[in-house]
Amino acid sequence: MIASTGNARVRAVTALAKKAKARREQGVFLVEGPKMFGELPVERRREVYVSENFLRQQGERAEKLLAGCRYETVTDEVMRHMSDTQTPQGILAVAEQFSYQLSDVLKNSPDGKAPELVILETLQDPGNLGTILRAGEGAGVTGIILDRGSADIYSPKVIRSTMGSIYRVPFIYTDDLHQTIGEVKKQGIHLYAAHLKGKHNYEEENYTGPSGFLIGNEANGLTEETAALADAWVRIPMAGKVESLNAAVAASVLLFETARQRRQ
Amino acid sequence: MIASTGNARVRAVTALAKKAKARREQGVFLVEGPKMFGELPVERRREVYVSENFLRQQGERAEKLLAGCRYETVTDEVMRHMSDTQTPQGILAVAEQFSYQLSDVLKNSPDGKAPELVILETLQDPGNLGTILRAGEGAGVTGIILDRGSADIYSPKVIRSTMGSIYRVPFIYTDDLHQTIGEVKKQGIHLYAAHLKGKHNYEEENYTGPSGFLIGNEANGLTEETAALADAWVRIPMAGKVESLNAAVAASVLLFETARQRRQ
Repeated sequence: MIASTGNARVRAVTALAKKAKARREQGVFLVEGPKMFGELPVERRREVYVSENFLRQQGERAEKLLAGCRYETVTDEVMRHMSDTQTPQGILAVAEQFSYQLSDVLKNSPDGKAPELVILETLQDPGNLGTILRAGEGAGVTGIILDRGSADIYSPKVIRSTMGSIYRVPFIYTDDLHQTIGEVKKQGIHLYAAHLKGKHNYEEENYTGPSGFLIGNEANGLTEETAALADAWVRIPMAGKVESLNAAVAASVLLFETARQRRQ
Repeated sequence: MIASTGNARVRAVTALAKKAKARREQGVFLVEGPKMFGELPVERRREVYVSENFLRQQGERAEKLLAGCRYETVTDEVMRHMSDTQTPQGILAVAEQFSYQLSDVLKNSPDGKAPELVILETLQDPGNLGTILRAGEGAGVTGIILDRGSADIYSPKVIRSTMGSIYRVPFIYTDDLHQTIGEVKKQGIHLYAAHLKGKHNYEEENYTGPSGFLIGNEANGLTEETAALADAWVRIPMAGKVESLNAAVAASVLLFETARQRRQ
């Protein structure tokens, strides 16, 4: 059992919680809590840490979760130290990162529907990114493309707020967003930008074919250069004095409208 | 100029940032940043604090914002101490709370559309609450009802994430949610609960008449007792393995569908 917060492995995990660079260099990320651990594909597990308290309190549930799994027990204090949250859930894993190609992101959905992409430019808030993955999976999104200026999808806060969608929605980071957008368009995917100057209301476009949605930075929206690459600008009409929507809300409105149209 | 973090007024502001009880007893809340300060109705201003740096750097903008306004200058260090954020924006006001009645929440929209309510049961995340206010105003929501178990709408994080909608969307807290729901229904408002067991997809209902949406707690959804008071349960169909949506996303999908129907 690990009882010291000075333990080398404990310090390595703490670094993974805090530093995108450490995660990137080692090709791993952290997964916390029984739900997220339970959904983590077994082949991605690298290390598993469980607190004394978790083993004691969860009994059968812990046994079931940990069946056939090598793990290390740590004291509750060490778990608090390793955890990214204020109330740790007692189980934590180091997991192997995903490595998707553009072609993974451009596939049809498992039930044969046309691709539905989300393309993020400098989306900075981890909570927004996690929410977009979760709502996106629910709406049928087939892939996500992010530029390097966007938040790190492997940060603990993103992982947590995806509620497991991180394991199932393919995504890629691109160093050259404009070039990647060009390749996406060459594949026949019609790109829409949510834009205040959109000519049509968003529900007036037809999203049943291969579609992608460009979503910009929380404070500044899309850059002009990126917005110019869209095939169409669509407007989410707004009542009151609201100037713009939260990025995750705007994405959700467009993605669930797409899902609605694809059900008709 | 206030230069000491031990100053009595500084300490009073710090208490307002941290304690719902202090805000409630004094009937005030804090507003930070030029945008939120600029939109604050003048008659609600009680105290205004501005940092040295803000006056120096913002020049004309500061003059315009502060025209005809009594304010206190504070050192940058004091402002950092008073602010709820890590990067204070240099201007902060103590503002008088709103006091709406149920009748304010039940009015038609300014452009004559039927009432569109959001009713929140134990919604706990301040970010979600602020996002629901902001997206709600954008979608045409006419009022919000919260039970006492919900987050404090006057907490700095909620205020910030409303992006100004807090000033414009009427809201009330109720000690007895079920009784209030009864009164709302007596006014002819049709209530919908987003529910996994909903019989119809949400887009199959007609929300052009007086409508209200019941939204539950982030982890547990609506209580059975509250869901039972809805006139209809609606389902947001979900692809993949997503079990539920973030509360603010679920609310936004329903509210923008309502706006869409009301535009037809």
